[in-house]
Amino acid sequence: MSRFFSEKYASLVPYVPGEQPKKTKYIKLNTNESPFPPSPLAVDMAAKAAEHLELYSDPECRELVEAACEYYGVEKDEILFTNGSDEILNFAFMAFCDRQHPAVFPDITYGFYPVFADLNGVPYETIPLKEDFSLDASDYVGMGKTIFIANPNAPTGLTISLAEIERIVASNPDNVVVIDEAYVDFGGESAVPLIHKYDNLLVTQTFSKSRSMAGARLGMGFGCRGLIGDLNAIKYSTNPYNINSATMAAGVGALKDVAYFRKNCLEIAKTREWTREQLLSLGFRVTNSKANFLFAAAPNYPGKDLYLDLKAKGILVRHFETPRLKDFNRITIGSQAQMEALIAAIKSLLA
Amino acid sequence: MSRFFSEKYASLVPYVPGEQPKKTKYIKLNTNESPFPPSPLAVDMAAKAAEHLELYSDPECRELVEAACEYYGVEKDEILFTNGSDEILNFAFMAFCDRQHPAVFPDITYGFYPVFADLNGVPYETIPLKEDFSLDASDYVGMGKTIFIANPNAPTGLTISLAEIERIVASNPDNVVVIDEAYVDFGGESAVPLIHKYDNLLVTQTFSKSRSMAGARLGMGFGCRGLIGDLNAIKYSTNPYNINSATMAAGVGALKDVAYFRKNCLEIAKTREWTREQLLSLGFRVTNSKANFLFAAAPNYPGKDLYLDLKAKGILVRHFETPRLKDFNRITIGSQAQMEALIAAIKSLLA
Repeated sequence: MSRFFSEKYASLVPYVPGEQPKKTKYIKLNTNESPFPPSPLAVDMAAKAAEHLELYSDPECRELVEAACEYYGVEKDEILFTNGSDEILNFAFMAFCDRQHPAVFPDITYGFYPVFADLNGVPYETIPLKEDFSLDASDYVGMGKTIFIANPNAPTGLTISLAEIERIVASNPDNVVVIDEAYVDFGGESAVPLIHKYDNLLVTQTFSKSRSMAGARLGMGFGCRGLIGDLNAIKYSTNPYNINSATMAAGVGALKDVAYFRKNCLEIAKTREWTREQLLSLGFRVTNSKANFLFAAAPNYPGKDLYLDLKAKGILVRHFETPRLKDFNRITIGSQAQMEALIAAIKSLLA
Repeated sequence: MSRFFSEKYASLVPYVPGEQPKKTKYIKLNTNESPFPPSPLAVDMAAKAAEHLELYSDPECRELVEAACEYYGVEKDEILFTNGSDEILNFAFMAFCDRQHPAVFPDITYGFYPVFADLNGVPYETIPLKEDFSLDASDYVGMGKTIFIANPNAPTGLTISLAEIERIVASNPDNVVVIDEAYVDFGGESAVPLIHKYDNLLVTQTFSKSRSMAGARLGMGFGCRGLIGDLNAIKYSTNPYNINSATMAAGVGALKDVAYFRKNCLEIAKTREWTREQLLSLGFRVTNSKANFLFAAAPNYPGKDLYLDLKAKGILVRHFETPRLKDFNRITIGSQAQMEALIAAIKSLLA
C-alpha cells in the first residue's frame, strides 16, 4: 500500500481468483469453466466484430438486449449487461446498500460478497447455513436488509426452490433481494419470471459457465425498470462502454444458438451425476449440487491434502481453507474423459 | 430512480457518451475514433482468442504486460491494464481521492472527471483555463490536492510541456498527479518516463484512439510500484477478470505492430494539420490541437447550429452546450477523404 492510498481502503482484502496456471498443463477443474468451446456462432460473430474494433461498442448493447429479451421473455428496460457478473454484483452493492441498508448473505457463499461490501463501506452480516450447508429461507424472512443469495449456492451447489425465493422477496418489500444465478442453467430454477411481480428483486446471471464464455466477461441482471435504471445510472457514471464489441457479438451468437447451449448444459449435468455417484461409492460426502461443480469431502483425507495430491497428479481442483469448508474440495465438472481421469486419480490416492 | 437507490447517489448525474447512431450512415467525426481498422495482427489474434473463450482470461494480463513493458520501457509492476481508460481513471478517484484529498482539474477538460468525483463522494475544485484555453501550470504548483490533467486536453487538444508537468508533479510530493494521455500519440510528449523519478505520478493511456481499438475497451496506467499496487487492490476488489481474452490478444497484436501504429498516428496528424489550415482559411478559430480532433469555432455561426447543419448533411461532430464551449465544435480527424467531405460541407454552409 502506498502512502497515497485512501484510508477508507486501509483494511480492504481483495478477492483471490482461482489459480490460472500458464506453464504446466493441468486438467483444470478449479474455476468452474466449461469443458466445451463457445458456440461456433459466437466465435464467428466475435471474430467478425474484431475487424471493426476501431469504433466504440454500443453503450446500450442494443443487439444483445434484443436477443436476450427474446430468450428470457423480458422487456429491454428490465435487463442490463455488465463486464462479467462481478460488475453487476458490485453495482448492486453500490446502488442498493449503504449504512442504512446493510447487506446480508450466508456465511458460506461466493467469496466476493464481503469484498464488495468492504469496498463500498457497506456493513454486512452473515447467516450460517445449516450443518448440511442447506439454506433456511426462514432466516431471511422480513430481514429489512439487502439480501444476496447465490442459487445454486457456491461452493456447495445447493439450491433453494422458487417458492422459498418468493417467500424471501415478498417478505422484504422495502429491501432489494439479489439472486445470483451464475450456475442456474445446470439444474436450478430461475427467478427471472418473478421480476414482473416484485419491484425489489434483482436476478444476476453470467455467460461464463453455461455459455462457455468465461473469457469474454459477460454478465447480466434482470429487474424491474426502476432497479435497472438505478444500475444504469451507476454504469453511466463508471464505465458507459463497459462491454467490448467482440464480447457483445459473441453474446448475441451464444443467445441465438439455443440448441448448443441446451445440449452442453444437459451433458454437464449428466457428467456431474456420474461423477457424484462415483465419489459417493468411494465413500465421499458430496452435496446434491445442481451447478457445474461438485463439493466433496473424501473419507479420512483432509481436503487440502487431496487438493495437493491431485495437483501433483496434474489435476487442479479448488480448496478453501476455512473451518467449515476445509474437509472439502470444489470440483468443476469437465468433460466425461476428464472426470474419468479424476476418478482414476482419486482411486489411486485412496488405494 | 427507484425507491431503493442509495441516497448517496441522489444527485448523481451520469456521463453522456457521444451519439452512437445505428441506423443512419453518418461520416462519424464525433467520438474521436480512428478512421483506420486495428492492426491486422490485432484482429487475427483477437479472432484466435475468441475460439477459447470458455477459459477465464488471465487476471494478471501477463502477455499484454510483457508486450507493453517492452514497448514503454517499464517494469511489470509499473503498469496496469483496465477495461478502457475510464476504468483506471475511476480507480484513481477511488484510490487517491477522499474528503482529505479532494480532486482538482481544469474547468474545461474530459467531462467524466466530475462524474467520477461525484460517484465516489470526492469533493473537487475546477481551475479555469486561460481565455485561449491554455493551462497555466503555476495554477497547480503546491496544490495539496489530487490533480487530474488531460494532456493533450479535451476537447481543446492543447498540450502542456513535459517540463510543466514535472514542475506540477515535483511541487505536489504528497499528492498524486494523474496525467491522462488518451491522445498523446498524435503529437504530445508522454510523461511515462517520469514515473521512474516521481512516486506520485500516474499516467493513463488508452488503445481506443491511436491503436484503433475503441470497441475493444483497453486502457492502462503507468506509475511506481506503490501506486500500481494500490490500483490493483481496487481491481481485485472490483473485477479481477476485467480484461476479456479477445481484447487482451488484440492488445498484444497492436503493441507488436509498431510500424502500423506509427504510420496511422503520422497520417492522422498530417490530416489534422491539413484540416486545420482549411478551417483557418475559412475564418474559423481553431486551437493548436495535438490530438486526433480539432476544436473549432466558425465565424458568426453558433456552434450548435453548425453541429445541427452538418448533421443534416450526414456529418456528425460533437457539440458541448456549455458557456465557454458553445461557439465551438469538436471534430474528430477521420480519413483525408472524410475531412475533404467535411470541408466541402462547411464551405456550402458558409456560402
